[in-house]
This record gives sequence, structure tokens and C-alpha cells, in this order.
Amino acid sequence: MSTPAPAAPGGSAATGTPADGTAAAGAPSAVEQRLAELGLTLPEVAAPVAAYVPAVISGNHVYTSGQLPFINGRLEATGKVSSGTEGASDEATVSPETAKRYAAVCAVNALAAVKSVIGDLDRITRIVKVVGFVSSDPSFTGQPGVINGASELLGRVLGDAGQHARSAVGVAVLPLDSPVEVELIAEFA
Amino acid sequence: MSTPAPAAPGGSAATGTPADGTAAAGAPSAVEQRLAELGLTLPEVAAPVAAYVPAVISGNHVYTSGQLPFINGRLEATGKVSSGTEGASDEATVSPETAKRYAAVCAVNALAAVKSVIGDLDRITRIVKVVGFVSSDPSFTGQPGVINGASELLGRVLGDAGQHARSAVGVAVLPLDSPVEVELIAEFA
Amino acid sequence: MSTPAPAAPGGSAATGTPADGTAAAGAPSAVEQRLAELGLTLPEVAAPVAAYVPAVISGNHVYTSGQLPFINGRLEATGKVSSGTEGASDEATVSPETAKRYAAVCAVNALAAVKSVIGDLDRITRIVKVVGFVSSDPSFTGQPGVINGASELLGRVLGDAGQHARSAVGVAVLPLDSPVEVELIAEFA
Repeated sequence: MSTPAPAAPGGSAATGTPADGTAAAGAPSAVEQRLAELGLTLPEVAAPVAAYVPAVISGNHVYTSGQLPFINGRLEATGKVSSGTEGASDEATVSPETAKRYAAVCAVNALAAVKSVIGDLDRITRIVKVVGFVSSDPSFTGQPGVINGASELLGRVLGDAGQHARSAVGVAVLPLDSPVEVELIAEFA
Repeated sequence: MSTPAPAAPGGSAATGTPADGTAAAGAPSAVEQRLAELGLTLPEVAAPVAAYVPAVISGNHVYTSGQLPFINGRLEATGKVSSGTEGASDEATVSPETAKRYAAVCAVNALAAVKSVIGDLDRITRIVKVVGFVSSDPSFTGQPGVINGASELLGRVLGDAGQHARSAVGVAVLPLDSPVEVELIAEFA
Repeated sequence: MSTPAPAAPGGSAATGTPADGTAAAGAPSAVEQRLAELGLTLPEVAAPVAAYVPAVISGNHVYTSGQLPFINGRLEATGKVSSGTEGASDEATVSPETAKRYAAVCAVNALAAVKSVIGDLDRITRIVKVVGFVSSDPSFTGQPGVINGASELLGRVLGDAGQHARSAVGVAVLPLDSPVEVELIAEFA
């Protein structure tokens, strides 16, 4: 996952130029305009500090690293997703509804990672595959509904090109106690 | 995973025509004949209801969504896989032997997803990769034996083309409390 | 994962010839020389005994099976990774530092799997993607630090070609109670 590459604290995508300078300058892409209509902007993608990077191009595909729902460089909530309402747990839990919103943030961050290597999100011809990992209380079985947050975001901003194959699984725990992590493969031209 | 895209209840592949109409009509493929010899038929692949789809073509690869062991649109068993026989658990568990059979069902459903986009399973030149997720009691370490159910099925019906790379992991919980979920990448010509 | 394909007990890569005979003979590759400088040798890759294989070529990519940290055919430690020091657990646990070393072993074994199908590791043009699964105590959130063991090894021996996209997740349990499992996709020429 991309712990060493969160958005810079307080950073925004106002300039449209990611930290590694590979993006084209000028007008925002149609994809970014649709993001803006949803009230969303792409975060900056900070330079990596380890032997892995936010995204890699191979042929006409981009593979992203697993994305956590960083907003301005931090996780707004941590813990496992649980549908329980008993409130008796001594562990922090996150509701499915909240986790679904964070899954959408993961998808936005994944698009930022894609942009950092191809420069213009309008070059995306297809989101090929999404894998969504949900940090799950062992009794929580609604992973698909959580990861729909990512899938619906991709459909809204990419249209038919956002229709992807997907796996959603419930894992024991995620980095930094994040409730959700999303990776994707995008095809581009 | 493909929760919104189970086989239609009571559906069968008698016509060889999946729900989205992309399959070639006519005689069953050699792959489907081998499935029939094993007493198996491909389920129908229902139209997706969310922003993701059962399978996506990119270049000469098909990426499937994570497949659950739906049989006629429902899961025959739910719960985590455990090798324990003490029977003292208050949670539903599934034996490794049963889970292995369900892993084979996942593989059949993955082939149905592949057929829904390429029309004819005889076009498969190689199963490139399989990932098998086993919903596991934390003490259960026999994931490879469970996922062998999928691997052996693919080998039986595809021969050398069914020889794949594979990962098998034990996760905390799966969608709908399924005991197993399998995704794959197929190369086709 | 590659349980049926561990290195042969006591085996070494002194001859540079993996078990399946596909490797080129002669001088070690530059990659293997860098491994040797780190005190590492590639293990042999035993013939598979199931319907899956250690690695598959598709186009100009190699997909490896999930690799466990086998050393001379066995796991030196088993259990879940935990940062706790209270020592009150009745389950075997593995420290993050130890698990990081094992993640590096997984990466070496993945390179051996790649070599078994392309013959010469100097043909690798890019490690495209790494997925690291860490068998995690539910309170352990340092999966990235563990998988850095694999990422740093790949960077050391492959240089820029070792810079990959990556996901790291914490799973409930892994095959044979391994603390870590790593799979990768490599691009080659």
C-alpha cells in the first residue's frame, strides 16, 4: 500500500501537477471535471520513499499500489468495519456506510496515482480490475457494499470505461489500521 | 466479488447462451464437453447490477471478478473453513473437504464469466493466474488444499492450458459469509 | 501459494540450473551476482505436484505463484506477526523485524520462480506489481514495514527495474502458518 506516498498534508490538486512532474499542464481532463462536479479533486502524489512507487506502467496498462483513504495526508478514521450496533466492543469500528465513502476516496487516490504516470486521465480506456480489501470484523460480510463506493465512483467519472472486474474480500487488518484499501489496473491509450 | 451477478435461480446452461448474449450458439465447446463429463454445466451469468462486471477483456486477457460458489444462485454453505473437529464452536464452520468442492464451483463460475465475454471457452490458451481466498478460522492453515479444488478443475477441463500460477491466502471473512472466493486471469486467442 | 514447490531440502543454486531445466547455463546473471553480494543464492524450484506451477509466462510478463519464505525447503518460523511484547499470548507470534527478513526470502524465491521460466534474470525489465500478504495479529498494522523486506531486496538487486507498484494487507492466516506470502508480476524482454 502507499503509506510512504500520501498526499502532502494540506496539499491539493489545484495546479493539476503531481509531485513528480509528469502530468500535462493546462486544462483539467474531462475525468477531472466530472470529479469536480462531485466535489472531488485529485490529491498530489508525493514522491515515494521506499523501493516501490504509487503506480507502474507496463505496456498499455497502469498497475497502482494499494491505496488507503488518505484525505490531506491522513486517515480520518481507523478500525475494522462492522455492522454491529451493540457498541459493546472495546475496539474502534467503522460503519459500512462510512467505509463505503472511504472506498470512494481510495478510488480517487488511485486515479491520482494513475495520473502521476500517464499525465492525463482521459487517456484511460478501461478500468480492467479492482481489488478491494476491507478490514473486517469477522462477522461482517458486506464487503461488496463497501467496495461499491469505489466502483460507483469509477463508473460516475469514467462512464463505460469505468466498468471493471472486481474482487472484494474481508481481511484481518490493514496498514495504519485503515478500514479499506483499493488497488486497480487501468488500460490506457 | 460478483454478488450482484449470481446465476439466475434455477438457471442452467442448457442453451449455452449466457444472459448477455455474447456467446456463440451451436455445439458446446470441448471445454464444456469435459465439464459435462464431470457432471458440470456452466451457469448463466446474470447482468450486472453495479458498476462492475463479471469479466473484462483487456488485450488478449480476461480478468474475472472474484467468484463465489453460487449453485443455482445461492450459497449452499456459509462460514469459515476449519479443520477442527471439536464441534464446540458457536460459529458455523465448513470442513476443508467441503470447501475444496466449493472452490471447484468457483472455478466453474469463473469459466462462465470468461465465456460471457469471449463466447467460446476453447479460445482459452492459458489460465495465467488464480487467486484463491479462503475464509479461515485463524488456526486453519490448509488453504492450498482447498484451492486445489479450483486448480484441479481447471487442469481437468483445460489440460496444459489450465496450468496456472496461483496464490492462496486465508482471509478473515468473505462476502455473504462465503467460505471461498476465486478470481482468475485467462489468456485467449 | 507454492507449497508443493519448495526448494529441494538442502538444495542450492550453485549450478544455476533450476529443476525444470529451462535456465541457461554458464555465467551467473548480473542479478544473481548482486544477490551473491548480499549473501543470497537462488533456491532450486522443484517440479510442481499439482495443477498449478511456480510461474507462468503470458506475453512479456511473468506471473509468479504466491511465495512462502522457504529456506532449504522449510519454514524457519510460523505464526502471526505481532508487534506486542507482552508475551501473554498462547499463540506463536513473529516479530515485524523477523517477518521483514522472511519477506525478503519470499522475494528471492519469487525471483527463482521467474528464472525457472525465463532462464536469465537479466531479462527482467521491470517488476510491475508486488502483493504482500502478512499473517497478522488483528492489532498489528505495520504490514508495509514487513513487505519492505521484499521491496528493498528487489530494489537492491534490480535497480530501477525493481521499482514496483505494491499492495500490502494483513490476512487472518497463511498456508502452513507462514508469517508472510509474496507474489509478483515481472515484465521481461
